[in-house]
Amino acid sequence: MDSVIDFWFDFSSPYSYIANEWVDAVAARHGRTVRRHAILLGATFQAADLKPPVAYPLKREYVLRDFARSARFEGLPYQPPAQFPIPTQNAARVFWWLQDTQGAAAAADWARAGLRAMFTRGVPLHESAALKALAVEQGLDADAAEAAWNDPEVKARLKRANDEAIAAGVFGAPFFRVDGEPFWGNDRKAQIERWLASGPF
Amino acid sequence: MDSVIDFWFDFSSPYSYIANEWVDAVAARHGRTVRRHAILLGATFQAADLKPPVAYPLKREYVLRDFARSARFEGLPYQPPAQFPIPTQNAARVFWWLQDTQGAAAAADWARAGLRAMFTRGVPLHESAALKALAVEQGLDADAAEAAWNDPEVKARLKRANDEAIAAGVFGAPFFRVDGEPFWGNDRKAQIERWLASGPF
Repeated sequence: MDSVIDFWFDFSSPYSYIANEWVDAVAARHGRTVRRHAILLGATFQAADLKPPVAYPLKREYVLRDFARSARFEGLPYQPPAQFPIPTQNAARVFWWLQDTQGAAAAADWARAGLRAMFTRGVPLHESAALKALAVEQGLDADAAEAAWNDPEVKARLKRANDEAIAAGVFGAPFFRVDGEPFWGNDRKAQIERWLASGPF
Repeated sequence: MDSVIDFWFDFSSPYSYIANEWVDAVAARHGRTVRRHAILLGATFQAADLKPPVAYPLKREYVLRDFARSARFEGLPYQPPAQFPIPTQNAARVFWWLQDTQGAAAAADWARAGLRAMFTRGVPLHESAALKALAVEQGLDADAAEAAWNDPEVKARLKRANDEAIAAGVFGAPFFRVDGEPFWGNDRKAQIERWLASGPF
């Protein structure tokens, strides 16, 4: 059996931030490894003819409240971003650049740093200066990071990740696949943990 | 503090079925009572400019799988209805008729019976004959039940329930309100239980 937990996320997704803080520990507890996929929810929404929850006024009001409450529920810090949602393609491209040049651990570190910056410190990941500063904080070469997010090959890499996500049935984030079973949402963590502990149910 | 847990549900909602099997026990554990509101999701979706998840092909495929898995996760029986979703206004009208003539316990019994019939036995609640048979099973006068769902006053009662739900910010089901705090979804049970046990977080 494939020991990988596939984990799709968007740097602009608060529920992805919460789930990202959990997924490595649960994988380790059950002898699994995490395969992260940075994607753009905009692409998967479009493919599935969906809009984000914050596109609907009533639902927006609820989910903004639920983002913060769900973080508190897990004991995680959370600060609502001043602007939300934001375009996160450059952050995602840095993820894939790191994945392909330095490996999964470096990309995972970037994912964690980016999501935490976005949702606990109000760092505007869509602004080049902020993203370069974050790269420096992470010990990366900021100019190389900027060159990466402007590199057509890295852009194509993200595009391919989006296409692969869509082909895998991903229509939201976080989205997980374990032993072929799809789980959508931070609120499926308990089901995933049951699956990992005792198999299909 | 208001000791009531408001619980909105639609007879056509699998997640409402699952949550309905849970809500009375959790309320009892924490000295609360449940105030049920049968509504039509169609009305709340329209008010919030939303469509049901099964209206989107990719999401439909996922949620049909998740309905069954989420029931199994709770150890509940589940049988996918042959036709889904279905119009459930008559079942909801019987709920309000019982609520207003026999009280909350009788209405709760009907809610449980209707949701179980729909999601464990494939009873087509939108068909008059099936609904009358269910009424008989429940010890009700089937002709009186049918007269109720055709009664303009009972119809207006359901309409009022929908309008009140919309005014309360309800845009999906199950939907809960505890001490003024809104919780949407069967997957917020753990948060609700925390809230009931130790207060706002």
